[in-house]
Amino acid sequence: MPRYRLTLEYDGRPFVGWQRQNSGPSVQAALEAALVKFTGEAPVTTAAGRTDTGVHALGQVVHFDLARMWDPIKICGAVNYHMRPDPIVAVDAACVPDAFNARVSALRRSYLFRILNRRFPSAFDAGRVWHIDEPLDVDAMHHAAQALVGHHDFTSFRSSECQAKSAIKTLDRLDVRRVGEEIHIDAVARSFLHHQVRNFTGTLGLVGEGKWSRRDVETALAKRDRRAAGPTAPPGGLYLVSVDY
Amino acid sequence: MPRYRLTLEYDGRPFVGWQRQNSGPSVQAALEAALVKFTGEAPVTTAAGRTDTGVHALGQVVHFDLARMWDPIKICGAVNYHMRPDPIVAVDAACVPDAFNARVSALRRSYLFRILNRRFPSAFDAGRVWHIDEPLDVDAMHHAAQALVGHHDFTSFRSSECQAKSAIKTLDRLDVRRVGEEIHIDAVARSFLHHQVRNFTGTLGLVGEGKWSRRDVETALAKRDRRAAGPTAPPGGLYLVSVDY
Repeated sequence: MPRYRLTLEYDGRPFVGWQRQNSGPSVQAALEAALVKFTGEAPVTTAAGRTDTGVHALGQVVHFDLARMWDPIKICGAVNYHMRPDPIVAVDAACVPDAFNARVSALRRSYLFRILNRRFPSAFDAGRVWHIDEPLDVDAMHHAAQALVGHHDFTSFRSSECQAKSAIKTLDRLDVRRVGEEIHIDAVARSFLHHQVRNFTGTLGLVGEGKWSRRDVETALAKRDRRAAGPTAPPGGLYLVSVDY
Repeated sequence: MPRYRLTLEYDGRPFVGWQRQNSGPSVQAALEAALVKFTGEAPVTTAAGRTDTGVHALGQVVHFDLARMWDPIKICGAVNYHMRPDPIVAVDAACVPDAFNARVSALRRSYLFRILNRRFPSAFDAGRVWHIDEPLDVDAMHHAAQALVGHHDFTSFRSSECQAKSAIKTLDRLDVRRVGEEIHIDAVARSFLHHQVRNFTGTLGLVGEGKWSRRDVETALAKRDRRAAGPTAPPGGLYLVSVDY
C-alpha cells in the first residue's frame, strides 16, 4: 500500500488537540473523516507531534497508508474540501517510502511560542498569543534560555502527565527575540517532553519580568523537580512550526 | 469640553464597517456604547477613515468630546472592558486640542493590502487576506504600481458610490513587495477615494497574473472610467494601518 506524507496547518482553538478523543473535536478525527469521504478508505493517521488542546500548527507532519495510488496534490485539495469549515489546511503532500514514520523518523522539531508584549490585548490574535502587559527584558530572557540548551535532564520542565520514559533530552536551540510588539521563542530539538516548551516559556517569563535570573533557571534545571521551575504558559501561544526528517 | 483622540485596532469581519448603520453591528456603535457605559455621556465619535464592511484597522484614529477630564489610558482600559468580546481594542489615547479633528486634520493615511499567494488557503487568516493561488509576478506589480503614484484623476479607480467632490488626488506611495507567502501592497496618501486601494489591488492582480502590463494600467488611469480598470479586490485583505497628523 502506498504511504503518504501530509503537511498540515491548523488553528488549534476549536480542537482538543491533534489526538482523537471522546471529549471533543480533534484534528486527527477531522482529517480521518475527510480521508474516508474522499477515498472510501479509513486509514489511521500518525502525526509528528501530539499538539495539546489549543496549540496550533504551521507544519504538522502526518503519515497514512491508502490502498490506491493518488496524485498527492489531489489529496491536499480533496481533504481541504472535506475539512471545511474546520480551520485545518493541508499545504503539502508526497508519496513516501514505507519506512517513513511521521513520528519516529523525525530528526528535528521546531516550535514557536508567541508572546504579545504590550499594554493592551490584540483585536486579531486572542487565543493565538500569550498577552503579557508588563514590559519584558528580552535580552535577559535569551541569556537565561541558553542555560537550557544542550543535553540535560529536563524533569523540572516536564508535565506530571508526561509519558516519556526518560526526561533526558538534547535541546538544540532556544532563542528569544523581539518581533515588533511580540516576543518570539524558537525551540528546536529532536523531541520534546510534554509541556516542555510551555514550561520553558513560563519560566523565561519570570526572567523577563526581572523576578528570576539566569542562575535561578540553572538552579531550577538542576533540581529535577517540576515545582522548582516556573508556571506553564497558556497553549494558545504555541505553534508546531516544522519537522525535519 | 476636553477632546480625546483614541487609536483603535479591529478585526473587521463581524462589522458592517466603521460607520453606524441599521443593517448590522458597526465599530462606531460598539465604541459609542462602551463610552456611554463608562462615562454616562453619549459622545458622537468621528474617525479618520470610514472603513467598509469587512475591512480591518491596525491604527484607526477617532476623536470625541467628554464633559469630564479623564486619564486617557483609563479610557483605553475602560472601553476595552466594555467592548468585549467584540474584536476591537483601543491601543492608545490622548487629550488633544479642540482644533484636532480625526478626519479633517489627517495629513497622511497608510493602508496595507495583504494577498496570500500560495496554492492553498490559510487555516488562520480566512477573511484577513485575499487568497490568490496562481503565482503572481511581484516585480511587475510594483513596476506597474509606480504609474499610479503622483497627482492624477483617479476616476477609473473610484467606486460608483464615492461621494468625494473630486477624483483628483495625490498618491504618495504604492509599493508591492513579497513577505514570505504573502504579497503586501502599501498605499499612502493624504486621502483616498471610496474603494481606491481595493481597485488598485484588483488591477495590480491582473498585472501579477501577466494579463496586463504597466502600459495597460496607464491607459486605464487615462480613460477616467471605472470600467477601464480591473476588478475590486475583496475587503478582507485591507487594513487601515496608521494616520499621520
